[in-house]
Amino acid sequence: MSDAAFLTDFHEVALIGATASGGVDRQAATPEDRRTREWFREFAERRGWEHRVDAIGNQFALIEFVPDAPYLLLGSHLDSQPLGGRFDGAYGVIAALHAADRIQRRAEEGPRPDRNLAVVNWFNEEGSRFAPSIMGSSVFAGIMDETEMLGTTDLDGVSVAEALEAIGYRGEGSRPTLAGYAEIHIEQGRILEREGIDLGAVDFSWYTQKLDIEIHGEQSHTGATAMADRRDALVGAARLILKVREVVAEFEPETLVSSVGRFTHEPNSPIVVPRHARLVADLRSVSKDTVLAARARLLEEIERVAAEEDLEITATDFDVRDHQRFPEAGVALVEQTAADLGLSVRRIRTMAGHDSIAMNRITPSLMIFIPSVDGVSHCEREFTRDADMLNGLAALSEVAWRMLQGALDRVEAEAAR
Amino acid sequence: MSDAAFLTDFHEVALIGATASGGVDRQAATPEDRRTREWFREFAERRGWEHRVDAIGNQFALIEFVPDAPYLLLGSHLDSQPLGGRFDGAYGVIAALHAADRIQRRAEEGPRPDRNLAVVNWFNEEGSRFAPSIMGSSVFAGIMDETEMLGTTDLDGVSVAEALEAIGYRGEGSRPTLAGYAEIHIEQGRILEREGIDLGAVDFSWYTQKLDIEIHGEQSHTGATAMADRRDALVGAARLILKVREVVAEFEPETLVSSVGRFTHEPNSPIVVPRHARLVADLRSVSKDTVLAARARLLEEIERVAAEEDLEITATDFDVRDHQRFPEAGVALVEQTAADLGLSVRRIRTMAGHDSIAMNRITPSLMIFIPSVDGVSHCEREFTRDADMLNGLAALSEVAWRMLQGALDRVEAEAAR
Repeated sequence: MSDAAFLTDFHEVALIGATASGGVDRQAATPEDRRTREWFREFAERRGWEHRVDAIGNQFALIEFVPDAPYLLLGSHLDSQPLGGRFDGAYGVIAALHAADRIQRRAEEGPRPDRNLAVVNWFNEEGSRFAPSIMGSSVFAGIMDETEMLGTTDLDGVSVAEALEAIGYRGEGSRPTLAGYAEIHIEQGRILEREGIDLGAVDFSWYTQKLDIEIHGEQSHTGATAMADRRDALVGAARLILKVREVVAEFEPETLVSSVGRFTHEPNSPIVVPRHARLVADLRSVSKDTVLAARARLLEEIERVAAEEDLEITATDFDVRDHQRFPEAGVALVEQTAADLGLSVRRIRTMAGHDSIAMNRITPSLMIFIPSVDGVSHCEREFTRDADMLNGLAALSEVAWRMLQGALDRVEAEAAR
Repeated sequence: MSDAAFLTDFHEVALIGATASGGVDRQAATPEDRRTREWFREFAERRGWEHRVDAIGNQFALIEFVPDAPYLLLGSHLDSQPLGGRFDGAYGVIAALHAADRIQRRAEEGPRPDRNLAVVNWFNEEGSRFAPSIMGSSVFAGIMDETEMLGTTDLDGVSVAEALEAIGYRGEGSRPTLAGYAEIHIEQGRILEREGIDLGAVDFSWYTQKLDIEIHGEQSHTGATAMADRRDALVGAARLILKVREVVAEFEPETLVSSVGRFTHEPNSPIVVPRHARLVADLRSVSKDTVLAARARLLEEIERVAAEEDLEITATDFDVRDHQRFPEAGVALVEQTAADLGLSVRRIRTMAGHDSIAMNRITPSLMIFIPSVDGVSHCEREFTRDADMLNGLAALSEVAWRMLQGALDRVEAEAAR
């Protein structure tokens, strides 16, 4: 398929759940998510590819070259954050479908691959409606428990199982046996743009962890309670939200990011001093030691705020994700392919979590980045130029072709040892 | 009725909507609110008093001594904050019912009053489910528009009219013509307790106003966005929450209180930098000038935070409530009555809003406080001793008796001039 056909498809999918300012709102297992799934299914069925959905709602399009051989899997996710961007995830799925289409045509002329090819749209990568994020690929990889995830509920009490039933995407399909995984994604940072480089070959992921912080104060009358008598959970929370940023500023620039995105408090009445607040601090760094040092500093500050404000504050570690290193052979394959295609490339780390990180636990995986304008993501003005998307598509198509020819077999052999 | 009968009734009503830690949860027009209304109705009907509900859900028990004469009204409210205390409001209604019962018996022995007596349970004083607070009495007083208030909705989109229908308390009863109003309430501060005084004669209310603050930033990825590129609405909100407290600290102790109780933000996802936040800052002072000075300081700080954080922030004044002075004759009546009963008394201001402040706009009104342990209110550990409640009941009964004999007629004559 032509570059024009890819761009037409990309911009068509961006209309599903489109928001007023150019973004999309397609949270997992919503009607908008269903519509992107219908589009994916039609893309596959129009080409005679097998379409299959597994029990956690992962959606597969399968092309069989060799009966019973394992599959090279390409993909990403079509779900989005609320008022998210139209590139995050969707670009990777649509590029994977078009790469698969190109590879199928190329295989007709030979050499015929000795393994099969599939494209995946992973369920709930974003984790905004149902926590945690990266759910579908993590269940596939055996890192998260399927039954537990199906029982996870959104803020309205609807479970993953119910939501998938409601959109008709709670499947029973078997999961393909894999021979490798490749994913392409926008960078969501500004390194490639700043350096004017076409592609990033992701070598490892940042170390990340979250802290679930609960603050217990005492409810009282906002008007009638003397200032000195208050034990205001919201004031404690406000101090910690700022502490999170101050602690980050103590480290080298661009080595650590952190912020608070989830935050609730009670009773949320205009004339009541809040009794309880809960917030999630997200810590990520290129270095595990930096995250651990920042976490220790935050715990010190939590203790100080608790003492000074007469509050009880607890902090619980969760969602700890160690560095994941992608196989060196895959990184080198991306570099070599870029050079052969005349594209510039550099090694890069990922600060965000991705499905590829889950997949890398069970099969040789690689990840490619393309530039993000201004480095912004998870927002409506997230943007990547068409030319950059087409470079990425060319690179993914060629990398996947070479993987089908056995380019990463050495890695598989190493992993098997 | 005896003191024991009052205490029995008070502690019985405290079981309606009782919470685990000794408070009550009886927000306006909920099933719990309905149950306290049934109790009120039964109290009236058992004594042959007329029971009447008006269009905004205010509930009246009426005792007619003289056909067509105006009514002295006693009362407060039976609704509560979520996880509120069992004294705030409820004490005033139950004391008013028992005072009315005592007065009715006393009137049988003469002298017979030349006006009538009624007790009221005002609708939605608390304003936690339906804003604004002090709704029922303000509609009665013509300060708030009845149709507009009936259309006000809670966070689930249920209107006041629908909620009142649902509990069977959207009435059609006419509103009694008034000859005066008296209310007794817990102090919700610690002045009476600290000074060991039995009663407060409220002379005026604090000046109060709220600021509705909206913060617009930009949504982005918590993990992948460089710290310098963020326009974090939650960080801006956290700074303002703390600024509210810092500004208060610039003034003399106990002359100004303020805090943030209502606060929301979007999109509230663990891995998204929030784009929008909204908060209500509540400013109250014994002096109007102090509130205006604090408001001006807050607006300066808002401008500073907006500039430093690259946010758009707007602040809108609302719920501005000027000082209300209660008639001097009423304050003096409370002081004289206390002296005659052997109770200690001092003049006191109210920091909180009360139904009496709305009623004072249309009829000569007075307000009596009794001590609050530790000064805490709007919380489950709000507490007042039985002995203090009984002192208050004695004072209210005697004050109301004297009002029925014309003790405040001079005030009415003055108001009419």
